[in-house]
Amino acid sequence: MSITVQNVIDKLHRAFGPYETTVDGIVAGSGQTAVRGIAVSFVASYEAIKEAAALGANLLITHEGAFYRHQEGGRGTADRSRVRLMKESYIQSAGMAIYRYHDHPHRTNPDLITRGLLRALEWERYQHDYADAAVVVTLPEARRIREIASHVKSKLHLPYLRAAGSMETACQTIGIAVGYRGGGEVAIPLYERAEVDLLLAGEGPEWETPEYVRDAAAQGIGRSLFVLGHAASEEPGMELLAELIGDLFPGMPVHFVRTPSPLLII
Amino acid sequence: MSITVQNVIDKLHRAFGPYETTVDGIVAGSGQTAVRGIAVSFVASYEAIKEAAALGANLLITHEGAFYRHQEGGRGTADRSRVRLMKESYIQSAGMAIYRYHDHPHRTNPDLITRGLLRALEWERYQHDYADAAVVVTLPEARRIREIASHVKSKLHLPYLRAAGSMETACQTIGIAVGYRGGGEVAIPLYERAEVDLLLAGEGPEWETPEYVRDAAAQGIGRSLFVLGHAASEEPGMELLAELIGDLFPGMPVHFVRTPSPLLII
Repeated sequence: MSITVQNVIDKLHRAFGPYETTVDGIVAGSGQTAVRGIAVSFVASYEAIKEAAALGANLLITHEGAFYRHQEGGRGTADRSRVRLMKESYIQSAGMAIYRYHDHPHRTNPDLITRGLLRALEWERYQHDYADAAVVVTLPEARRIREIASHVKSKLHLPYLRAAGSMETACQTIGIAVGYRGGGEVAIPLYERAEVDLLLAGEGPEWETPEYVRDAAAQGIGRSLFVLGHAASEEPGMELLAELIGDLFPGMPVHFVRTPSPLLII
Repeated sequence: MSITVQNVIDKLHRAFGPYETTVDGIVAGSGQTAVRGIAVSFVASYEAIKEAAALGANLLITHEGAFYRHQEGGRGTADRSRVRLMKESYIQSAGMAIYRYHDHPHRTNPDLITRGLLRALEWERYQHDYADAAVVVTLPEARRIREIASHVKSKLHLPYLRAAGSMETACQTIGIAVGYRGGGEVAIPLYERAEVDLLLAGEGPEWETPEYVRDAAAQGIGRSLFVLGHAASEEPGMELLAELIGDLFPGMPVHFVRTPSPLLII
């Protein structure tokens, strides 16, 4: 008996919890389609969809959507750009269903996306405490910021890191806030109440946390920030999810497709 | 007769237009203080305030605020962080008044902040058309993306540029959207309707415009994006404003204080 797209979604909800009122949902294709193979990626980029199709998958499960906005509003609405129309046409010809799976994995306890990043950094073995929107890691001893930067770049395969604040202090307590949780509302309480020396964030408005850590450094308070980029902070969580989906569907081919940040340094 | 902080604000409103319902306002100090000197900067960072005081100014006019949020909510509310308390205490001891001047210079026609960036890029001499939230520049002939990147980095004194999309195409039509106008809502119509080849933006969510231009490039449509950073995109506008303020107050010392992006590449 074949497994449909809707069967996959239902089983994800049983495994990781069902939630109402989310941005999650089928953004392309039909729930009734029989699934031949599953691909998982951070974002449903044009190239990721092509790669998923080349791997034989006809269901792509992604964290960020296909059409360049957080609230995609289903098919047929809003943005009628040429790029979107060409993409929709390609998705249809490839027979690909796309399921946006954003809010659910963030609402597991602990947040599955944060857990994936912690694993990729090999910091699960250190003391770590999950809070609402973040995790706080205590290293066994203080390490220099530049040494931690090298570790992060190497484990996440990043060509560069954007950093603010003190670059010379040693730090032992590190906060991690994935995705768009790098704003002051999440970050400032982490520095002030959880007393993190360093925050690793996905992204956030530049006038909030970067300015806060710049001021802290100017005041002689050694606080630092690494802005990993949205993709770098959440892709490891989707890679973990791909493995868990593989466990849920024995016999079903499940592939992870990488979509590193579209932003390069020139 | 001395000029007060409030006199300066009133004269700015007469010169550039008064508006209701803005985030603009006095965020530190009093409107009744006699002004000895004016400093202008992009953001009221701790170091900018110190530099303004060292220059003899006791009024700092800034685009972004002092306390790490867009809606600062006046003094005494919200964020009671140690960094903010130390900053407030320093501002008070320095006798500095801070006036946030954000919405007004964006609402002049043309947008004064955008005009400053156009001038810094030396593109005022080319054909340029202001739209609501952007300006579209037509170069006399097409130039290669990497050549334009070198020009932009050199004119804005940027150590790096973040870029997405096609890096090899030639482009002639360039959109400029300063500040946090780099999201899809402003950017996608510029590419699709104004047919810009390249957009220079301040900042915006990474899943919107960068993903759009990545898809466009994958579809063989040569579109590109430079993410300048919020400060780099708006500081030249505040530098222009400092000059205009100097013209408005003959005899008053007016200084421009640089606050480049707190984010470095490591």
